[in-house]
Amino acid sequence: MENKRVYGIDVGGTTVKIGLFEDGKLLRKWSVPTDISDGGKNIVPDIAASLPGPADGAAMAVPGAVLPDGTVNRCVNLGWGVCRPAETFAALTGIPCRVLNDANAAALGEQRQGGGQGYENVLFVALGTGVGAGVVLDGKVRAGAHGAAGEIGHLCLEPEDAQAKCTCGLTGCLETYCSATGIVRLAALAGRPGMSCKAVFDAAAAGDGAMEAVVDRSCDLLGRGLASACALIDPEAVVLGGGVALAGEFFRAKVQAAFRRYAFHACAATPIRQASLGSDAGFIGSALYAMEPGR
Amino acid sequence: MENKRVYGIDVGGTTVKIGLFEDGKLLRKWSVPTDISDGGKNIVPDIAASLPGPADGAAMAVPGAVLPDGTVNRCVNLGWGVCRPAETFAALTGIPCRVLNDANAAALGEQRQGGGQGYENVLFVALGTGVGAGVVLDGKVRAGAHGAAGEIGHLCLEPEDAQAKCTCGLTGCLETYCSATGIVRLAALAGRPGMSCKAVFDAAAAGDGAMEAVVDRSCDLLGRGLASACALIDPEAVVLGGGVALAGEFFRAKVQAAFRRYAFHACAATPIRQASLGSDAGFIGSALYAMEPGR
Repeated sequence: MENKRVYGIDVGGTTVKIGLFEDGKLLRKWSVPTDISDGGKNIVPDIAASLPGPADGAAMAVPGAVLPDGTVNRCVNLGWGVCRPAETFAALTGIPCRVLNDANAAALGEQRQGGGQGYENVLFVALGTGVGAGVVLDGKVRAGAHGAAGEIGHLCLEPEDAQAKCTCGLTGCLETYCSATGIVRLAALAGRPGMSCKAVFDAAAAGDGAMEAVVDRSCDLLGRGLASACALIDPEAVVLGGGVALAGEFFRAKVQAAFRRYAFHACAATPIRQASLGSDAGFIGSALYAMEPGR
Repeated sequence: MENKRVYGIDVGGTTVKIGLFEDGKLLRKWSVPTDISDGGKNIVPDIAASLPGPADGAAMAVPGAVLPDGTVNRCVNLGWGVCRPAETFAALTGIPCRVLNDANAAALGEQRQGGGQGYENVLFVALGTGVGAGVVLDGKVRAGAHGAAGEIGHLCLEPEDAQAKCTCGLTGCLETYCSATGIVRLAALAGRPGMSCKAVFDAAAAGDGAMEAVVDRSCDLLGRGLASACALIDPEAVVLGGGVALAGEFFRAKVQAAFRRYAFHACAATPIRQASLGSDAGFIGSALYAMEPGR
């Protein structure tokens, strides 16, 4: 259904981004606020009400685990428990809908049209408030048997670090060091409470030794986590996105150097690249997923 | 070529195991010694000379990284550098041959006919002198972009542990704690030099507290590594093979418990199972690989 009309939808904790595509081209994009009141029951109706007309298909990216049959297993940020939002969407709009994890959608978008272009096997990592990731193999995004594939944010790197409590219940997850929240936390531990993630990077780049140590520790752990991921999945390329990656080449080069310190020799030359679609990656990837042949 | 005659070959550091299959059934199996003299140049001719006749295809499992085009990127235990043993084999025998990593071959064997039967998505881990692993997704073994997929032995778990020097050049790799060699090393550090891996397990099972602490540390690190692997690959099941796993349910239960301590919630119930094909897994998996449609 490459040459059809589809909606790509990315449901975030504060905003839903939506794009309308025809023949694979973006016709228009818009957003609606995410209403998380009442267990998030208005989210899908609000999306449906914003659509400018019928379409042949849609896909919805959500911030939570999605099982192979399309069942969503909790989206804490949306107030959703176990639910099947694609069915609600289809009932309201008459448009068949698929659902996938938001990092997986962004991974597909970046692999096909962003920082991973030219590669069929890509690990995409989104470093934002949390850390999400998606694995694309042979051009197909892998959800995993329990919707957990690519959960690099929950690699347990420092199990003895009692200060690194993760929202998932574990201690020492990669996310507690490498998300924006994690970097702010490390800066506070280094005696600079209240700094934004961007301010930490700006200070580090300007030669502030304490903040460069914070950035170096974060990049070292990310490099170690990426080395683990590449030893297991061995993609052609890693693509870094999300707000943290906006720190640019200063950040990317540190992560690449750390990766090389820990990488298994056979995959130590795997390129670490920057994402290029920004916050549009999720709805673009969703549209690409909606256009894929039925599975 | 399911209903054809194929050879499955597993090249180990001391012995080459070979099976002849017809219509998918094993007709006979035998082995030849691995002659690693002269850079291992006699290995493939020795295999060729042992074959009882022509066949429609063959696959050879080797202990090293195999690139997607069949180039072997070093097999230290065989004395091989960069080489293309399938071409040598085909030139000597007239039988078309594929080559794959030995742990990947064993993974395919166990997934189809061993401890992973009934699952299409399996992580197989071979705990022997070293630690190898293979990833099977949708029933196909994944080699990775650089032949490194499934290299769980080189997850860097304890980068600060200077005593845990790995043969790969890194420090603190999973293999340095969870291989038979690693367990013997931990026992020596605990004041019991010269014990075999089996003796360590026997002592632990008999209530020797110091040796149970060694086994517990090894299982804790393996559980942590498997949790990382499942967060990234999210298979339906993990299958443990190799000599260490012969310690049986005493070992498997400890690994499953450790896995649950570190696993991401969505995949914490992933079963950890025992391999069942023993040292035949490699040549059985090679034969299955030889029977797969051309790629």
